[in-house]
Amino acid sequence: MKTRDKIIQASIVLFNEQGERNVTTNHIAAHLGISPGNLYYHFRNKEDIILSIYDEYAGNLLLDTFPQVSDEEKPLDAIILYMDVVFQMQMKFRFFYSNLPVLLDKNQNLREKYVEVQHAISERLSQLLLSLKSAQAINFDEDELADIVSILRIINTFWVSFYQTQNIVKEVNDTIFYQGVLKILAILRPYITDKSLPELKKAKEMYQQRCQDALLNN
Amino acid sequence: MKTRDKIIQASIVLFNEQGERNVTTNHIAAHLGISPGNLYYHFRNKEDIILSIYDEYAGNLLLDTFPQVSDEEKPLDAIILYMDVVFQMQMKFRFFYSNLPVLLDKNQNLREKYVEVQHAISERLSQLLLSLKSAQAINFDEDELADIVSILRIINTFWVSFYQTQNIVKEVNDTIFYQGVLKILAILRPYITDKSLPELKKAKEMYQQRCQDALLNN
Repeated sequence: MKTRDKIIQASIVLFNEQGERNVTTNHIAAHLGISPGNLYYHFRNKEDIILSIYDEYAGNLLLDTFPQVSDEEKPLDAIILYMDVVFQMQMKFRFFYSNLPVLLDKNQNLREKYVEVQHAISERLSQLLLSLKSAQAINFDEDELADIVSILRIINTFWVSFYQTQNIVKEVNDTIFYQGVLKILAILRPYITDKSLPELKKAKEMYQQRCQDALLNN
Repeated sequence: MKTRDKIIQASIVLFNEQGERNVTTNHIAAHLGISPGNLYYHFRNKEDIILSIYDEYAGNLLLDTFPQVSDEEKPLDAIILYMDVVFQMQMKFRFFYSNLPVLLDKNQNLREKYVEVQHAISERLSQLLLSLKSAQAINFDEDELADIVSILRIINTFWVSFYQTQNIVKEVNDTIFYQGVLKILAILRPYITDKSLPELKKAKEMYQQRCQDALLNN
């Protein structure tokens, strides 16, 4: 692995474990056994590392892996696949999402990149919901679409933060990620057509099972 | 006003305007024209001020003003009244909600108080939704209740944060608060009974109008 990539991967681990505000560039360099000068050759400062993490990994990965409704797949699978990606991202880059408003305040370049990716995601999520409507898997009035997209995105963005603020012990594990997907299914539930209800029920049971399995493995 | 209350009120204003992390106890004392020693007579440190703000104002006010379904009021009015209180609180203490996970991490007493209030709010919100069901204003399966309560609370807690992370220019004004209430109405929409649909439609139009009026007044 190249030094630049090593710095990015180590930063993600340290930020997640210790909280971004408790980790300095010196900590990251010491953790990798490289000199601070070597780190500064690749990144100007910590904000520059965070921008690269979002730009090269989190943000673009979301767009690259965005699923589409196709003839080969069941329509609801596309949205579950998408939520899977989103919540895995939340777990992998949880330092980013648990401190999002502050990080964006500190870094205008990051804010601009983030807003750009978010608009692209809103657009694609709207298209995905419209495809599901065409496939008669869900049903909604056109004037409800923007609100449904917003609500899904709020849950996507803040689910881990919400979970962490509801408990005295702030533990993060895989059950949280499955519970997030279950919340998304709960939001979609009233819009699901009778035809697709068994598919939703099956998905719900699968995630409840995964949640229980993850609890036992903890 | 007593010095203690003056410190609390000034802190709320400064935290909201400049961000909590950019304001020190020295700033607060200087703003009020009192000595740092006088401030420390009332509060041990900044965390102590924030705990008092939540404990004496934000948290308990939420519980004190929680509406109940009564025979004199239309059932849906109770939930709209509640959302009104919640979102006004979000605007008034926005420094708190825009940085919630970090503030709770830094202050275990605050976390315990916050979690306690949140559990009480969940309980009351569940009761409110069950009353609305008894009054045949909304309808849902009993096993959907916990998810609906969670989803409403995520929107309540993170709406202002979400709004602020979606735009390049981070401006906070009254339109955001009305848009938050509109999101809550959108979540409730699929559960509303035919009987109560005209009431929901009227509420939606009222908040859309308020939102437009607030935009014009900006």
